Amino acid sequence: MAVLKVVKIGGNIIDNEIMLQNFLLEFSKIKGPRILIHGGGKLATQLANKMQVEVNMVDGRRVTDAITLDIATMVYAGKINKNIVAKLQANNCNAIGLSGADGNCVISKKRPVKTIDYGLVGDVVKVNIEILELLLHSNITPVFCAITHDKQGQLLNTNADTVASEIAIGLANVFETELYYCFGKNGVLEDVNNEDSVIETITTERYKGLKEKGIIANGMLPKLNNCFRAIQNNIKTVCIGKPEIVFNKTLKYTTIQK
Amino acid sequence: MAVLKVVKIGGNIIDNEIMLQNFLLEFSKIKGPRILIHGGGKLATQLANKMQVEVNMVDGRRVTDAITLDIATMVYAGKINKNIVAKLQANNCNAIGLSGADGNCVISKKRPVKTIDYGLVGDVVKVNIEILELLLHSNITPVFCAITHDKQGQLLNTNADTVASEIAIGLANVFETELYYCFGKNGVLEDVNNEDSVIETITTERYKGLKEKGIIANGMLPKLNNCFRAIQNNIKTVCIGKPEIVFNKTLKYTTIQK
Repeated sequence: MAVLKVVKIGGNIIDNEIMLQNFLLEFSKIKGPRILIHGGGKLATQLANKMQVEVNMVDGRRVTDAITLDIATMVYAGKINKNIVAKLQANNCNAIGLSGADGNCVISKKRPVKTIDYGLVGDVVKVNIEILELLLHSNITPVFCAITHDKQGQLLNTNADTVASEIAIGLANVFETELYYCFGKNGVLEDVNNEDSVIETITTERYKGLKEKGIIANGMLPKLNNCFRAIQNNIKTVCIGKPEIVFNKTLKYTTIQK
Repeated sequence: MAVLKVVKIGGNIIDNEIMLQNFLLEFSKIKGPRILIHGGGKLATQLANKMQVEVNMVDGRRVTDAITLDIATMVYAGKINKNIVAKLQANNCNAIGLSGADGNCVISKKRPVKTIDYGLVGDVVKVNIEILELLLHSNITPVFCAITHDKQGQLLNTNADTVASEIAIGLANVFETELYYCFGKNGVLEDVNNEDSVIETITTERYKGLKEKGIIANGMLPKLNNCFRAIQNNIKTVCIGKPEIVFNKTLKYTTIQK
């Protein structure tokens, strides 16, 4: 079985033109099948500000009304996605930019309103891998933004970490799949202010302890939950760290294990 | 050889939610391979206004500086493209939204500066049909916006009529290809104020005469030039008229012939 690398990059790379360029150059050199999933960085908020649209975040998540969904779709599926694709093409990586609506790849359901109404935010319910298989077997590299759809005509803003883990899980029966979460830190840190305090391995058992001690908290919780969902669903390798870890295994990073 | 329908829709449909919805429903019912190419309508100008970015049109064409290209990419490749795809998916048409950068489908070259500097505007130089064949043979419907790339990492704003004719020409050796230009009028009109004055057939010879008399002028010239380029390059059928002509051949419309 071929090894598939599923790589999620976040705002720290997307917002930095040079870092993005360098990352995409290395990414283009990966041998074998690969999928890139990108977040949105600060651009959506910047556009909202320019358009004088109020930005409403709850626990680091964007409350998405109709105009905010338009902004997210324009920035993520339009500007960021197509610029990444054009840059990869310049590196002779035959990329194709996709949202979850394209090819019906990622179907989600509008998040039910509990204490907070997140609006047009989707939770992934199904990944269709047929087209992804078709593309990957033709040496084409899918590049996903985190806009999905409900198959009823509604686009939905979705968490990019979740899109990454669900796509990886969907393909785990076809490829030996590695999942990389790249962000601005060296990994999950024992001490958030000390980049040298990388926790090299987190098992389910250790995760429980780290949560109890409050070492893993806030925004890291959903990321780690996605990691554990992946590792429990046939993903061979799940790593968290700087983007360079995808290409250079001598760096420090965090590995998730059952 | 299977019949491929390449359909270009413009602003009159895109700017009208109900008309778009109805068109996409009928489009979804087409049997056999089909490609949709969409223009941008008024949304790009509306967004530019909201962002207080100056809009600069010369002869009906958008002068595209870097921020205007961002706007075009966000609106065409993001908002319009993904909403069309989601609507088609709701109709069980397995659509995939593409720019010319995706899969390296449409390569263009920045338009040389003559009397006017159009900025980041591209003229199509090559269509790569491999991925389109792959998708069409898998019963997937490509939906193109008119953003292309130069294969050097630069996106370029491109004329949607040209993208449509070049894609049709590219596929004419693989499919028996029909090209439809859909807009707000019943066809090419003898008298622009009389919707009943549709010129039913325009040959190369007649086109010359119509141009000389000034009956075909301004914005219609590039559209007609695209039509004749298509008909001279193995496209079997080229029609201009209301969107309904794709589904209903009892309506009046203009046919282009050698």
